[in-house]
Amino acid sequence: MPVVEFTPSREQYVWTFGGAEPVMEVAPGTVLRLWTEDAFAGRVTSPDDKPSQVLNPKELNPQTGPFYVTGAEPGDTLALHVVSLTPARDWAASTTIPLFGALTGTDRTAGLQTPLKELTWIYAVDRAASTAVFTAHESDFELTFPLAPMLGTVGVAPALREVRTTLVPDYFGGNMDTPELRAGTTVYLGVNVEGALFSIGDGHYRQGEGETCGTALEGAMDVTLIVDLIKGHAPAWPRFEHDDALLTVGSARPLEDAWRCSQVEMVRWLVELYALGELDAYQLCSQLCLSPLANVVDVNYSAVTKIPKVLLPEASPFSGMHTSLRSQGAMLA
Amino acid sequence: MPVVEFTPSREQYVWTFGGAEPVMEVAPGTVLRLWTEDAFAGRVTSPDDKPSQVLNPKELNPQTGPFYVTGAEPGDTLALHVVSLTPARDWAASTTIPLFGALTGTDRTAGLQTPLKELTWIYAVDRAASTAVFTAHESDFELTFPLAPMLGTVGVAPALREVRTTLVPDYFGGNMDTPELRAGTTVYLGVNVEGALFSIGDGHYRQGEGETCGTALEGAMDVTLIVDLIKGHAPAWPRFEHDDALLTVGSARPLEDAWRCSQVEMVRWLVELYALGELDAYQLCSQLCLSPLANVVDVNYSAVTKIPKVLLPEASPFSGMHTSLRSQGAMLA
Amino acid sequence: MPVVEFTPSREQYVWTFGGAEPVMEVAPGTVLRLWTEDAFAGRVTSPDDKPSQVLNPKELNPQTGPFYVTGAEPGDTLALHVVSLTPARDWAASTTIPLFGALTGTDRTAGLQTPLKELTWIYAVDRAASTAVFTAHESDFELTFPLAPMLGTVGVAPALREVRTTLVPDYFGGNMDTPELRAGTTVYLGVNVEGALFSIGDGHYRQGEGETCGTALEGAMDVTLIVDLIKGHAPAWPRFEHDDALLTVGSARPLEDAWRCSQVEMVRWLVELYALGELDAYQLCSQLCLSPLANVVDVNYSAVTKIPKVLLPEASPFSGMHTSLRSQGAMLA
Amino acid sequence: MPVVEFTPSREQYVWTFGGAEPVMEVAPGTVLRLWTEDAFAGRVTSPDDKPSQVLNPKELNPQTGPFYVTGAEPGDTLALHVVSLTPARDWAASTTIPLFGALTGTDRTAGLQTPLKELTWIYAVDRAASTAVFTAHESDFELTFPLAPMLGTVGVAPALREVRTTLVPDYFGGNMDTPELRAGTTVYLGVNVEGALFSIGDGHYRQGEGETCGTALEGAMDVTLIVDLIKGHAPAWPRFEHDDALLTVGSARPLEDAWRCSQVEMVRWLVELYALGELDAYQLCSQLCLSPLANVVDVNYSAVTKIPKVLLPEASPFSGMHTSLRSQGAMLA
Repeated sequence: MPVVEFTPSREQYVWTFGGAEPVMEVAPGTVLRLWTEDAFAGRVTSPDDKPSQVLNPKELNPQTGPFYVTGAEPGDTLALHVVSLTPARDWAASTTIPLFGALTGTDRTAGLQTPLKELTWIYAVDRAASTAVFTAHESDFELTFPLAPMLGTVGVAPALREVRTTLVPDYFGGNMDTPELRAGTTVYLGVNVEGALFSIGDGHYRQGEGETCGTALEGAMDVTLIVDLIKGHAPAWPRFEHDDALLTVGSARPLEDAWRCSQVEMVRWLVELYALGELDAYQLCSQLCLSPLANVVDVNYSAVTKIPKVLLPEASPFSGMHTSLRSQGAMLA
Repeated sequence: MPVVEFTPSREQYVWTFGGAEPVMEVAPGTVLRLWTEDAFAGRVTSPDDKPSQVLNPKELNPQTGPFYVTGAEPGDTLALHVVSLTPARDWAASTTIPLFGALTGTDRTAGLQTPLKELTWIYAVDRAASTAVFTAHESDFELTFPLAPMLGTVGVAPALREVRTTLVPDYFGGNMDTPELRAGTTVYLGVNVEGALFSIGDGHYRQGEGETCGTALEGAMDVTLIVDLIKGHAPAWPRFEHDDALLTVGSARPLEDAWRCSQVEMVRWLVELYALGELDAYQLCSQLCLSPLANVVDVNYSAVTKIPKVLLPEASPFSGMHTSLRSQGAMLA
Repeated sequence: MPVVEFTPSREQYVWTFGGAEPVMEVAPGTVLRLWTEDAFAGRVTSPDDKPSQVLNPKELNPQTGPFYVTGAEPGDTLALHVVSLTPARDWAASTTIPLFGALTGTDRTAGLQTPLKELTWIYAVDRAASTAVFTAHESDFELTFPLAPMLGTVGVAPALREVRTTLVPDYFGGNMDTPELRAGTTVYLGVNVEGALFSIGDGHYRQGEGETCGTALEGAMDVTLIVDLIKGHAPAWPRFEHDDALLTVGSARPLEDAWRCSQVEMVRWLVELYALGELDAYQLCSQLCLSPLANVVDVNYSAVTKIPKVLLPEASPFSGMHTSLRSQGAMLA
Repeated sequence: MPVVEFTPSREQYVWTFGGAEPVMEVAPGTVLRLWTEDAFAGRVTSPDDKPSQVLNPKELNPQTGPFYVTGAEPGDTLALHVVSLTPARDWAASTTIPLFGALTGTDRTAGLQTPLKELTWIYAVDRAASTAVFTAHESDFELTFPLAPMLGTVGVAPALREVRTTLVPDYFGGNMDTPELRAGTTVYLGVNVEGALFSIGDGHYRQGEGETCGTALEGAMDVTLIVDLIKGHAPAWPRFEHDDALLTVGSARPLEDAWRCSQVEMVRWLVELYALGELDAYQLCSQLCLSPLANVVDVNYSAVTKIPKVLLPEASPFSGMHTSLRSQGAMLA
């Protein structure tokens, strides 16, 4: 396996899906060892930082990439296998950003109330123990809990000539913000433009489902990926595969539509895998699926449909791509 | 512990929360051994049954109850501990009901498309093995998977003189349709009227999160509950407690509002349990919570916020009510 | 025409649709001269009144009624023609109620922000000139504008044994809060229970479309109605008729579903009136309709679809009921 | 006044807001005489045309433009006054596009029902009489009704480096699809990039509020505009001015959020015009506004808040820009 390392300089940070020149071309089968800055572009560093003062609204969620994948054409399926996610710092930051988050009015759920107070929590991270320490602002409460590293953002360039900010999750992946995107996950994304032009970013050392306050334990991340390509078979919405589960991710507003997208995608997948009738697949999904929310704060909300493999007959999604990448990844560890 | 057994006759089925005479008065501390008919009122029995022909729209989701709890007053908290849920039949039924379900237009998400085909799936249930067999309509696919018995519906009489059908989930509990309401769960509900007037029903032998097609593996259920009462402390939204988790349930439309209700309720609970500032609790919930959907098909949608106890400092919610009921329940088994 | 006058005493105020004993039986063809208290039950009277202090949450939106209509059976259509609406006071009140209204978080769009400040505006009303005077709180701005009297609430008892508070708009009418319900309007409501059990209330001397802050120029109202009955033909959602327009009202959340309900009802009405194919009616409605919002603050939101009669071929909806009632009403003036 | 005429060749059609080279630079004060192709890019011409066969999904809603406005900088306000809209053909087309429209499942409100039948209606247009003839598919019903020409789409390049398809309405204007954008309207849009880069398109000879089926009486249009520029004062959402009304347009999902955006923008405008306190403006807007829907079918839904000037004290929004442009426009007629 060819192995490529890449750490972007500050000038190489990318703020959009589509619209940016690729940093390099990679062949299917390539291993990428990447570093990615946190979603604040590294600007939140102290519990005294106020997001409205230190953040640059034009420079949020910097991406590492985009990468041009040799041979990728519209209609193909990009497979990205996350081999490992390793926190690159011994601290992480989370904040309340004015008029952003799920339990406040926003630019769209517009209102007249005073924004919530701006607070920043800096978590001390013990990478060896894989834990973080929460320190309360309004009392002397402290709590240590385990890390659960994940990537908030993995996406390809959109279709229809669009360029979207990296704050957006949609059919092209993007800022899905789901804890299900972790080491061991294979992400399948439909290719919309020549070369796919994928990028990654938004490392979370841990995040609850829904990302309620709008930010996770944001931190720079070391990421090892294997890139692969399946000709054709582009799914309409992102599909993920774990060793023990099949997952689909929908992104839309209102939240029920995000979930509906993920459900219809799962029904399609079951139809494909087991040659089921559509209503039989609908019935099966209704009884077997888990539905863990991803984010309820971004430009689109994201919802996941997940079926444990143990409940289903054996199958080889995308001709066994996940199994193959998983064993390649194991050799790298 | 006093033990009361009750199996309603067909004439005793109840179709509303509020508005029905109690079947009996029970003192806090009482064990109830109940039987409840399935949500179809037992009318769907064969794969050839068409819901539009066999169902009576005025007789759906029959409840066992309501029970008048001695001493319960508005503002109190009813605690219901589910000791056991045992399928009472060796089959279960699920269907597509015209213009009901998540992947179709409905009476509210109104449209002009032709309804989905009406199909009924009858699952063979092996109670000893605790499994069910799915049999496809459009192919010869069969699949056996485990049961996961739960109650779709547990509720008290609403406030403001209202009477609601048992199809509705809301702040008073009701048709929440979450797999989290299973044996071992303690449900805390705010009391709105003298005696609380709670009832239960809608046994599901298994259900996916979201209940996509609108119906689960519907089946009659033997239910053992312990009833208890906490003076005051009524939560705004239903709270659940498991041995290993705290949970809150919100019900509303659109789905994000259901989830927001559950999140704000969890924030309140964390504030109470740990004397946290509200924004500190918001931050903590944002990083620790799970958000498994309940239903996206009922009159209101329902969403769950869940925090594993292992992530939190020790606490005794409602003065240790769950622990106490759990040990009482263990003695019954 | 028999004429009945009725002014409820305070003890006769009714707080629900369904669940209340009728105050009297009226035969189709009866003229009712009614008085109805304002939505605050008369408790907001001064600019210094804070809703959270003076209002009783169990006593909002008092109804005058319910009236049992002789011969009305489920499936029939109640026709209520509003002959006149006359403000019964020379002042009106409007307020910001904490966590109620469209530009604030609410009990369902739940959040953690501080509620908006509670303010009460008392409007001086000149009944002869039919104007009201707005007086600002935070500056010396004053503005006089015309009254446009309307009823926020007209409804019948719901189906399925339900009892709903008078704060709810739904298929049974209720708290629709649309300025389209004014003198000259005929309201058609499907009958759900014997006698229909309709009531009216919530006089608004004027209201914007959407009722943004949650309250209009609330004031007691003298109401003259003619009651009539059409056997069968119950519409699924309320229909209104003006001299110059056909209207339908849908109520649901999110707002698009409220509007969809009103649109599908209008499509049905066009199909009935002109024997159109459903897709032809869909096309016609798409090009001809107006869509003025009603409320975006109540338990359900309400949206109106309206087609000017001048755009349509002549027709006699409900066999000319509106025309007939209109001329009867003219004789009363 | 400099007058510039421009009719794009087919190769000059533009499919995005942002991302396209300007066709020319125009100075503030310029009169533009433009032609714009219909939203189908002219591909639907016969009642036998099926959209899924004749349309190119990558070539919908062609724009005329973009125009680089001399001196326009981020934070400025572009003023576009529509002097006249003249149908450029004697027919117009409307269709049902599979899984697009308000009364059907869509790509986001995803489901499993069969799409609605694809039908195309070709309207005969009498430009002298300013009428169109509807011809039913499923009966011999015909109906002649007046034209009401409008532009579905007027927008500038977005912020944050984004490029959006011309199917999207948002804070930058775009595909708002409101009948309020007609001859006599001045549109105020915040400038996001140097030169503003505005374009126009999507002529509708008539459209109902909501654009229910997803398409209006689509037709090529001759458009006369005057372009002007206000330094600073960029509104957050599009503002319109008529001779007799102030209007704001919000675009989002769900529909209540679109409306909330328009309402908050109107509250801000009232605060600016009359030096009102924010809650006083909220109250005033609540009682005076009209809320005609725009579209409930596009990528975002759009809603309008509108206040008749006759209800408000005299004011000179944007220093009398509309009045000035109106009189310039009158001289052109």
